[in-house]
Amino acid sequence: MITSQEYMERLKTLTPNLYIGGEKVSREDPRIVPGIRVMSETFDFAQDSKWDGVLTAKSHLIVNKINRFTHIPQNPYDLIQKQKMIRLLAQRVGGCIQRCMGMDAIIALSVATKEMDDKYGTDYNRRFLEYLKRYQDEDLTAACAQTDMKGDRTKRPSEQADPDAYVHIVEERDDGIVVKGAKISITMAAYADEIIVLPTRALREDDRYYAVAFAIPADWENVHLITRPVSVRQRKVAKCPFAEMGVSDSMIIFDNAFIPKERVFMCGEWDFGRRLALLFADSHRHSYSGCKPAVSDILCGAACLVAEANNIEKASHVREKLSEFVGAAELSFVAGIASALYGKKTSSGTFMPNVIYANVGRRLTGETIFKEFNLLVEVAGGLAVTLPYEDDFNAEQTKEWLDKYIVRNPNIDAETAHRIWRLVENLTASSMASWYEIAGVHGGGSPIMETIALNAEYDYNSKKNIAKYLAGIKEELDQTKELETEPFPLFFQE
Amino acid sequence: MITSQEYMERLKTLTPNLYIGGEKVSREDPRIVPGIRVMSETFDFAQDSKWDGVLTAKSHLIVNKINRFTHIPQNPYDLIQKQKMIRLLAQRVGGCIQRCMGMDAIIALSVATKEMDDKYGTDYNRRFLEYLKRYQDEDLTAACAQTDMKGDRTKRPSEQADPDAYVHIVEERDDGIVVKGAKISITMAAYADEIIVLPTRALREDDRYYAVAFAIPADWENVHLITRPVSVRQRKVAKCPFAEMGVSDSMIIFDNAFIPKERVFMCGEWDFGRRLALLFADSHRHSYSGCKPAVSDILCGAACLVAEANNIEKASHVREKLSEFVGAAELSFVAGIASALYGKKTSSGTFMPNVIYANVGRRLTGETIFKEFNLLVEVAGGLAVTLPYEDDFNAEQTKEWLDKYIVRNPNIDAETAHRIWRLVENLTASSMASWYEIAGVHGGGSPIMETIALNAEYDYNSKKNIAKYLAGIKEELDQTKELETEPFPLFFQE
Amino acid sequence: MITSQEYMERLKTLTPNLYIGGEKVSREDPRIVPGIRVMSETFDFAQDSKWDGVLTAKSHLIVNKINRFTHIPQNPYDLIQKQKMIRLLAQRVGGCIQRCMGMDAIIALSVATKEMDDKYGTDYNRRFLEYLKRYQDEDLTAACAQTDMKGDRTKRPSEQADPDAYVHIVEERDDGIVVKGAKISITMAAYADEIIVLPTRALREDDRYYAVAFAIPADWENVHLITRPVSVRQRKVAKCPFAEMGVSDSMIIFDNAFIPKERVFMCGEWDFGRRLALLFADSHRHSYSGCKPAVSDILCGAACLVAEANNIEKASHVREKLSEFVGAAELSFVAGIASALYGKKTSSGTFMPNVIYANVGRRLTGETIFKEFNLLVEVAGGLAVTLPYEDDFNAEQTKEWLDKYIVRNPNIDAETAHRIWRLVENLTASSMASWYEIAGVHGGGSPIMETIALNAEYDYNSKKNIAKYLAGIKEELDQTKELETEPFPLFFQE
Amino acid sequence: MITSQEYMERLKTLTPNLYIGGEKVSREDPRIVPGIRVMSETFDFAQDSKWDGVLTAKSHLIVNKINRFTHIPQNPYDLIQKQKMIRLLAQRVGGCIQRCMGMDAIIALSVATKEMDDKYGTDYNRRFLEYLKRYQDEDLTAACAQTDMKGDRTKRPSEQADPDAYVHIVEERDDGIVVKGAKISITMAAYADEIIVLPTRALREDDRYYAVAFAIPADWENVHLITRPVSVRQRKVAKCPFAEMGVSDSMIIFDNAFIPKERVFMCGEWDFGRRLALLFADSHRHSYSGCKPAVSDILCGAACLVAEANNIEKASHVREKLSEFVGAAELSFVAGIASALYGKKTSSGTFMPNVIYANVGRRLTGETIFKEFNLLVEVAGGLAVTLPYEDDFNAEQTKEWLDKYIVRNPNIDAETAHRIWRLVENLTASSMASWYEIAGVHGGGSPIMETIALNAEYDYNSKKNIAKYLAGIKEELDQTKELETEPFPLFFQE
Repeated sequence: MITSQEYMERLKTLTPNLYIGGEKVSREDPRIVPGIRVMSETFDFAQDSKWDGVLTAKSHLIVNKINRFTHIPQNPYDLIQKQKMIRLLAQRVGGCIQRCMGMDAIIALSVATKEMDDKYGTDYNRRFLEYLKRYQDEDLTAACAQTDMKGDRTKRPSEQADPDAYVHIVEERDDGIVVKGAKISITMAAYADEIIVLPTRALREDDRYYAVAFAIPADWENVHLITRPVSVRQRKVAKCPFAEMGVSDSMIIFDNAFIPKERVFMCGEWDFGRRLALLFADSHRHSYSGCKPAVSDILCGAACLVAEANNIEKASHVREKLSEFVGAAELSFVAGIASALYGKKTSSGTFMPNVIYANVGRRLTGETIFKEFNLLVEVAGGLAVTLPYEDDFNAEQTKEWLDKYIVRNPNIDAETAHRIWRLVENLTASSMASWYEIAGVHGGGSPIMETIALNAEYDYNSKKNIAKYLAGIKEELDQTKELETEPFPLFFQE
Repeated sequence: MITSQEYMERLKTLTPNLYIGGEKVSREDPRIVPGIRVMSETFDFAQDSKWDGVLTAKSHLIVNKINRFTHIPQNPYDLIQKQKMIRLLAQRVGGCIQRCMGMDAIIALSVATKEMDDKYGTDYNRRFLEYLKRYQDEDLTAACAQTDMKGDRTKRPSEQADPDAYVHIVEERDDGIVVKGAKISITMAAYADEIIVLPTRALREDDRYYAVAFAIPADWENVHLITRPVSVRQRKVAKCPFAEMGVSDSMIIFDNAFIPKERVFMCGEWDFGRRLALLFADSHRHSYSGCKPAVSDILCGAACLVAEANNIEKASHVREKLSEFVGAAELSFVAGIASALYGKKTSSGTFMPNVIYANVGRRLTGETIFKEFNLLVEVAGGLAVTLPYEDDFNAEQTKEWLDKYIVRNPNIDAETAHRIWRLVENLTASSMASWYEIAGVHGGGSPIMETIALNAEYDYNSKKNIAKYLAGIKEELDQTKELETEPFPLFFQE
Repeated sequence: MITSQEYMERLKTLTPNLYIGGEKVSREDPRIVPGIRVMSETFDFAQDSKWDGVLTAKSHLIVNKINRFTHIPQNPYDLIQKQKMIRLLAQRVGGCIQRCMGMDAIIALSVATKEMDDKYGTDYNRRFLEYLKRYQDEDLTAACAQTDMKGDRTKRPSEQADPDAYVHIVEERDDGIVVKGAKISITMAAYADEIIVLPTRALREDDRYYAVAFAIPADWENVHLITRPVSVRQRKVAKCPFAEMGVSDSMIIFDNAFIPKERVFMCGEWDFGRRLALLFADSHRHSYSGCKPAVSDILCGAACLVAEANNIEKASHVREKLSEFVGAAELSFVAGIASALYGKKTSSGTFMPNVIYANVGRRLTGETIFKEFNLLVEVAGGLAVTLPYEDDFNAEQTKEWLDKYIVRNPNIDAETAHRIWRLVENLTASSMASWYEIAGVHGGGSPIMETIALNAEYDYNSKKNIAKYLAGIKEELDQTKELETEPFPLFFQE
Repeated sequence: MITSQEYMERLKTLTPNLYIGGEKVSREDPRIVPGIRVMSETFDFAQDSKWDGVLTAKSHLIVNKINRFTHIPQNPYDLIQKQKMIRLLAQRVGGCIQRCMGMDAIIALSVATKEMDDKYGTDYNRRFLEYLKRYQDEDLTAACAQTDMKGDRTKRPSEQADPDAYVHIVEERDDGIVVKGAKISITMAAYADEIIVLPTRALREDDRYYAVAFAIPADWENVHLITRPVSVRQRKVAKCPFAEMGVSDSMIIFDNAFIPKERVFMCGEWDFGRRLALLFADSHRHSYSGCKPAVSDILCGAACLVAEANNIEKASHVREKLSEFVGAAELSFVAGIASALYGKKTSSGTFMPNVIYANVGRRLTGETIFKEFNLLVEVAGGLAVTLPYEDDFNAEQTKEWLDKYIVRNPNIDAETAHRIWRLVENLTASSMASWYEIAGVHGGGSPIMETIALNAEYDYNSKKNIAKYLAGIKEELDQTKELETEPFPLFFQE
């Protein structure tokens, strides 16, 4: 494991291939520093013995203790610890911890490479495990580049007017492949060590050149990032953790980039396109059962604080609203727990979360996120968006007025009151707020994607059989199949 | 364990103290038979080796294998099996399996009697365990009589104009107590072996005579039941399981009933009123994570069936609606799973579900039940409530017309189509439908009760601390306390 | 105008063609009497001078004052009075006033017959106006038989396996037509004077034999009704208006029925199928802005009453719930008002409500009905569905107990408390409750039908132009067309 | 009426008393220019004869044609035209037209000054009418300063620790009064001609010094504004109307400001505090039935556009979402129409909207606003918040890549696609988005304020009487009072 200092040093060594606002910039550009600070927490916490076993894990591959963000879950407890780690860090950084993307990508590849090898006798799993060892040993961070530009949504990749609408193989060589296309909305790519590319959807045979997965250093030749950073307005006086943190998303352009063989993990196996896409999605949806509760925790905490500042903490409608955050946080959390417990071991040894539970959980988070911002806004009142700028709170003339009038609850002094309102403003009335709302809907797949996943996976037939039995259409009701499900493993039984 | 036949024989021996529609009736009255059929399934399934370990359990007290409905959970797996048993049987009987009430009552008493003894040196736990041994050995069924008539909701028991608004002790004797008052909405009391009385709310010192818990045979002297049975219209030709099943609720009047000492489990310990009430509530709310998913399963299955009958199964708005049942069913299910896993061992050895998770789960079920009926109704169409009577489907003149026109999907014959619509009518357009809607809101505590429970138990302060840290109001964020929670036991770790 | 007594006498003269529960019965069958009582109110109120101008109207055709249920609206005020009349009567009968169906059918025919004549030079309007004069003069009631059995929902009428899945013309003669098929879910047909048949959907040329509309006496030859009556359990002692009222729906079979020419109002004009279906739907959706507010009024009033009985009227969560009924009632009401004001005069002179507003209003009612029952149930508590039978409140032994315990609020005596709970039970826990829930969703078209109507009629393009203008894609924004809409007529302007 | 140019010139003459970011700035500060552009449209449209009668009105006081924003409604048609004007302009400026605040303030004062005079023989109405003549003649704009800082929400003004928590009279002189305190969240104050101060809540006798209303020029002595401007990031190349517009809110400090008698419109009449506060609120809530539909129009239009860009316009789930905007827009619109039609004439001659309908309408808008942003976000996808900066679309290196990949629908060129996405980003992922979300909840009173208003004004008793009648508790049901309501005036009747 490395320190956050080492991580930042390593970033500096990358060749600039980053564009922000039309200019090519280095990995030290101040606009991406807030994102780097978020990533740094994942290294710092792993150094803290207090979180040993949460932030760290025992690898199934290498000897050294590893950061759990580089670990492949082997059993339900690993998934539960993953969820816990994410909630812990997300509370700390004020929301998205970002490093899950890479983790969920390696988890997905650990399974799919094995399954492709099983079917086609390919060599992907060995390549991947070599890569993984280094990933764990060097404590790497990776962006998962999955979402393609997609072009016309009604057409499959090979049917698009522009063949580059999805990243694809333009040339196969003995020593590797050449790829072209672009990925969009790729969080943290601007300060990742590596970029891991996965397919984004089910493919048919015609789409076989779109069945491609690989990993490359983030500054790879002919790979370009156009990055959009988001953070709240930097504080001058009332500095605080939330205002230090931020995120950035990138469009990643693969402009005939050459990918050496050892870094290619899928190459034409179109029938695994859906599988690999969903392995990542399901693992990532399970990750949401860690981070989304933390987002609710933060909004809930801010609502408590601002209710106190307004001295309405005891009002029954406020109490009712606070309890809605509890429902939002804990229902998504329990979905993750059950998803871990009822997950299953794949042929690769990787333990995958239960698909149904991961999806009902993630869908819920996507359905409630705007509602939760609405709740906080209702408790806070309009001041959330009309709060004068920080500078007014510091300037000679206006400070006096603001210090006097910002105090509502006489038990809270002017500075604290200002900090509370500033946090609420940052959380609800900023482009960061928008980022959390929109990522909360779409990250890891929007509710409609989970609905599709559920409709594909759920055993509606067994429900129909229950109705048929009750209606007298079917004489026997065999519930054994449906109810054979047991938590994994049967650890409790005597 | 006994057979359902033995259970029914035992019922017949009870002295009549049941009133229905103004008449005193026996336990063989046909109006309560549908409820007896539901109970019978709990005995029949326990005889089926297929469900060994689900319907049966190993007692911590007696040697013989016992019915799980008489078992006191000792660990998370017991809670998970309890949940599974309930879902299994609820699917089978078309909804409420009813016998949980007594089970959750003995679970609550197992804990509270020990805690009262620990504090006051009383003898309740020994008395209760003697009772429990017989309960397990004789495979008893019990109604839990908790909800009092309550009188004026703004007043506590001792403040009521009528002191009998809540069941209370009117006389303490050496050999027992005399109680007066009435309990309302007591499901399955009409065909239970025993009635277990628990307090319904928090009490103050003035209310000490209302702090009373005990168990008596259902036909005890000076105890009277006024019973309201509910079932769907009996079928003549198109017989089916759903139409055979039913439920009844009773008002139970305690008219200066004497309760012998050995059957008294709380007597004046007002400071345990809230505790005992909540122990039952929490255990019962966990039970809902078994039965409510089954109700959703049934509604979902019926929606699938009727969609097929309408040949709209593939319509995207129908698919979307079906997936909402999945969310409703599985989110409440996972809440139960996590509630089991993160439950805790009490001083009595009884393993209680996690309060927060049990409550977010139960609240969700109360919030979605009407919505789910709405969904089924939307998929079915108005025919659900305008379907001609069964007799019209059998009568010479009208049968021909109905057989012709009831067929919509040519792959479904007239009889099957009729059975589908009849089930949908029974489910959505009957007083049984109303029972499921209303019990779905209020049984085990309506959403507002769970909101109150959550507001009482949730650690809002830790959320506030997160917000304070992020706002820069609090320098350190100590998350160890909040995140020390581990699943019980740490079974996974190596 | 006739009296209710005359209406009932007239019904008795009809030849029996009604089947209930497999038996052919007369129009005096006690099971349909509750529905007849509802209809009677429409005659009685018209006799009451207090409601002159509301229940009565000046015909544009005949000299005598007429019942508004037989009137064709000529201006916005007529629509507003129609809405008011419906809300008035619906409050009085506890919900659906039923007679609107016929009214909306004649309104639709008044427009469509003229438009068909305009296009095809047919004679429908004259025939219809002759019919209408008699309808008004004799104060007739009519069921509107629109919904066909429909068969396979994915196929159009002419594509069905069974050609009779939709009512259609099997033979055209000089003196009339012969029709076959069945209509379903036809409210009040069992005690209507007439049956008016309309097409139920858009048709193509192949479906031309399904383009048929006509009116016949309810006991017409080769027309059979299979009727399903709904009412609450009749009271023995605590008699009351709500328990006297009821409704019935019928399947109507047309078994090669001959329809004389003068009674045929559409015969093959397939291109008017959609138009006529929608004219009825839109008029009926406007009617919902009268009855649905009344249903909310009743549920709101019952919630107020039961809150008083529980003595929780002042609780803030109860107050909040009560206000939700206000929103539900008044938002659907205002949709009707605006729909009247912004309606338009058709070529026939009939004034039709604004389609967009009628549809957004009706959709809202279909979306909130289950929610409103849920609200009432939440305020009432479980007793709504566990209340002992009325007979228990009257029987010697049990009356004493029930009278004692039913009182919660000491200001409400036992009989009143019983009546309150009995009403709440009737409203929420009966097959009548189910009827209101399900008819509330589907009557006049379920929410999905209004969504389809809105998507067909709404001017999305003008909204797109606004966005294009704001985005700088379109230089000019011409809002004149969109905003030229004025209330009809420009009565306010000076 | 004046031109926008004249308005801007007039603004420049104001003495600087504006602080932004700690600095005192002039009315030409570029950060408030976007707000000034919004205001300018209200002058420009009034100059356009196309909108005569919409943007202009005939004063009841002065001879010259006036801008409708300075007009006092005299009848329902005035209210309908007000609503239409607001929707028109709000579509044009991309949302809040801002100038309503002053309009609703003068409307409220026109009523309350008369009523106070009627009761107390004061001189307020004359003073106000003098002021109003000038307001109309000079085509003034005004901010309405209503919301006080409020301090502790559980205490009334006179109970606050800091007496200045609400603006109050500190001294009464013969020639006027001296006031102290601060108002918060005052939209458009930074570029208004005048500031009109109104009380914010019900008052008791102890609070009489808080019963104060007056109007002053925006640059009045001892009046200071701390202003927070909001707008989207200015465009460099893809310029467009939406990006030009903006808004600012101010805290207004009254630091012992002297108000001359002629400008004082309430001074100690504490019993009119609630009345005046609600007159403004109700008028403003009616205004929302103009602007909120326009906000929905814009979001709907943007959703249509981006659906086209994604080529998913025909997808059924998209169609369903689009129709939800229709419901949101038109239900709030119809509430305004009915509110106008059923409004009432006050003693002053001013025609006020119906309170119930204005409140159900405004509450709906506050409940749906976040949901509507959610809908747009769902249709748009994550790109809404990850779109690279505009500069990247212009820079040599990155332009080529972005132009290639931004095209999804081949019928939409790169520039148009960019403009669509940029609009969607502006609308959903910016601090402007937050402003619309939060103002959408709180402006004119949040949903909880409308619930309180409804509970205060709604005739629940008449609903209770309906239930009593139906339950047989009350023999007669007198609906005449309830249903006597007629549209104003009875213009339709013959």
